[in-house]
Amino acid sequence: MNQEVTTAQINLENRSYEIRIAHGILGDQREFLDWITGDQVMVITNNVVQSLYLDQLKQALPGKHVEEVILPDGEQFKTLKTAGEVFDKMLAVPLDRQVTVLALGGGVIGDLSGFVAACYQRGVGFIQIPTTLLSQVDSSVGGKTGVNHSSAKNMIGAFYQPLRVIADLSTLRTLEPRQFSSGMAEVIKYGLVNDPAFFEWLEQNIDSVMQHDRASLTEIIRRSCLNKARLVEQDERESGVRALLNLGHTFGHAIETVTAYGPWLHGEAVGLGMLMAARMSTLQGWLKDSEFLRIQSLLEKARLPVNPSKDFRPEELREAMNRDKKVLAGKIRLILMQGIGHAWICQDYDPKALQQTLEEFAIG
Amino acid sequence: MNQEVTTAQINLENRSYEIRIAHGILGDQREFLDWITGDQVMVITNNVVQSLYLDQLKQALPGKHVEEVILPDGEQFKTLKTAGEVFDKMLAVPLDRQVTVLALGGGVIGDLSGFVAACYQRGVGFIQIPTTLLSQVDSSVGGKTGVNHSSAKNMIGAFYQPLRVIADLSTLRTLEPRQFSSGMAEVIKYGLVNDPAFFEWLEQNIDSVMQHDRASLTEIIRRSCLNKARLVEQDERESGVRALLNLGHTFGHAIETVTAYGPWLHGEAVGLGMLMAARMSTLQGWLKDSEFLRIQSLLEKARLPVNPSKDFRPEELREAMNRDKKVLAGKIRLILMQGIGHAWICQDYDPKALQQTLEEFAIG
Repeated sequence: MNQEVTTAQINLENRSYEIRIAHGILGDQREFLDWITGDQVMVITNNVVQSLYLDQLKQALPGKHVEEVILPDGEQFKTLKTAGEVFDKMLAVPLDRQVTVLALGGGVIGDLSGFVAACYQRGVGFIQIPTTLLSQVDSSVGGKTGVNHSSAKNMIGAFYQPLRVIADLSTLRTLEPRQFSSGMAEVIKYGLVNDPAFFEWLEQNIDSVMQHDRASLTEIIRRSCLNKARLVEQDERESGVRALLNLGHTFGHAIETVTAYGPWLHGEAVGLGMLMAARMSTLQGWLKDSEFLRIQSLLEKARLPVNPSKDFRPEELREAMNRDKKVLAGKIRLILMQGIGHAWICQDYDPKALQQTLEEFAIG
Repeated sequence: MNQEVTTAQINLENRSYEIRIAHGILGDQREFLDWITGDQVMVITNNVVQSLYLDQLKQALPGKHVEEVILPDGEQFKTLKTAGEVFDKMLAVPLDRQVTVLALGGGVIGDLSGFVAACYQRGVGFIQIPTTLLSQVDSSVGGKTGVNHSSAKNMIGAFYQPLRVIADLSTLRTLEPRQFSSGMAEVIKYGLVNDPAFFEWLEQNIDSVMQHDRASLTEIIRRSCLNKARLVEQDERESGVRALLNLGHTFGHAIETVTAYGPWLHGEAVGLGMLMAARMSTLQGWLKDSEFLRIQSLLEKARLPVNPSKDFRPEELREAMNRDKKVLAGKIRLILMQGIGHAWICQDYDPKALQQTLEEFAIG
């Protein structure tokens, strides 16, 4: 009934797992039953995803005792308080240590559910069913789970790996185009970080990707996950090379912070952040102007913002960057590029290049 | 200035650490400075321990930025809400990812602080300074951290290992005698579980232990930690042999539950629970009557309760046992003994032996 399943293997010793990529697999019981060892299942989702996919998922869970928690949609509910309410519900049933938590939704649901699974009775089984492009290519690899604090994002959490990830391409049909583009920013990032051949592949195939061609979608998810996995495998707890994945994120988080997480989607902010990192790299003489233009063009074809924005001023961004948790001993560490596909962690740059970049892109 | 430091090595691959045992080391900066890599330290303690030992500990932290959270004393504060308040405090400073959390206190402080360290920015450094015998011989090994839920204890938590454990014998001088005896229940447990030679050593040395002889205290802490470590090393996430450490705990938790965690200290309940497990083992023909009497005698010399109690009825205990999280598929799994020093996980026992044991010890 289904097309063949494409897999990406994540190797983390006894926490290794597979990402399963195909169209229409979220309702396929063969994908789940060997991985749900107990009788109890806890599905965590939000009200939007629930109406679209919960019934289909439940068809894949015959004979299981299925509990569900439906959260309101939105990042503002990714809090310790919400996690506490989920624990209350789980303990009221009560669910035992053999329960498997299923996260059905985007990054907010995945991060919160993973944290709940990590902490419930000190850790229970966890399967991710990411329903957005961003969560399929980003949070499905790396084991970062957690909730936000009112003062900053992702401050409370755990490194916790899922049993497997089910990436169903069919869920991307219901995704808003802006959300799809937001996921594309992370896809392009993997090319820029350390896979120049993937960047070229994207340049050649961006139209079919944007038209949701199944084979192209499968390829961007598979290759993004494998690229992320190779870095995570070397550095599970983020002390070294994994930081390369933050390309565009220090600028991007600053954009999100100063705009109060309102008009800019995460990937839109990261997309512009990558372009800023590229611009700063050209100012340092590390990236060719022609490469900057290729990056700008690909982002544009992915329908991501590439123009200077009036939404913020240079000094606002600078201040937000200084508060970022990646600041070590007061010095802003940035991920810059020495050519497409060659990102590096840079603490030794000309402050004027940073200032000029901020002034060029922040024109509010 | 100090006596020599005795150590117990806990081997868990890249999460290995040392338990340091000596009199008066909690104020010794040599014990800390190599293990605190950043400038920031967060001490979590309670109001009772604070007045006794916080100043001394701070002398061991010259040049560090020391923040402190003083919690009220008591298990009722070991909650997700309290953890949230600690996160609020840490983020208000703000403390960065290089912070080291120091847990100064007994099991409640250790469990909560370990959970906070595990979750703060997805994991920061953590040093335990257990100030009770129970926490020195029990929670200093195994990495179990967490908080209680209103419905049950330790339901929310993480497995998270400390950088090292500083067990200062001098803190035992200020411990109430009943609390010391409560710790002795866990010490005796290690002999019963898999170290018959240690049980015999305890029989011969119980008087000097109860008189707080330093060499004897050092030996019980070292040997208890190593015994626990050998089981934890085989089974870090508690799927098998580690369950042996629950000897006496299914009965004991039931006693604590039905008495609403009031009159019975944890170790007192576990001590009587071990005696009940011993009695049940004799009824099954697995333990000699003479061995039962040796166990009873040692518990009594450690000033632990060994008599049938009017505080609870058999059916109350039975019901509480059925709700315990170690119940697999509705069947109570018990740790019983085939001789002193030979505990085993038993699901195949005569229900009448359990019933008779409950009736003999619960006479309320």
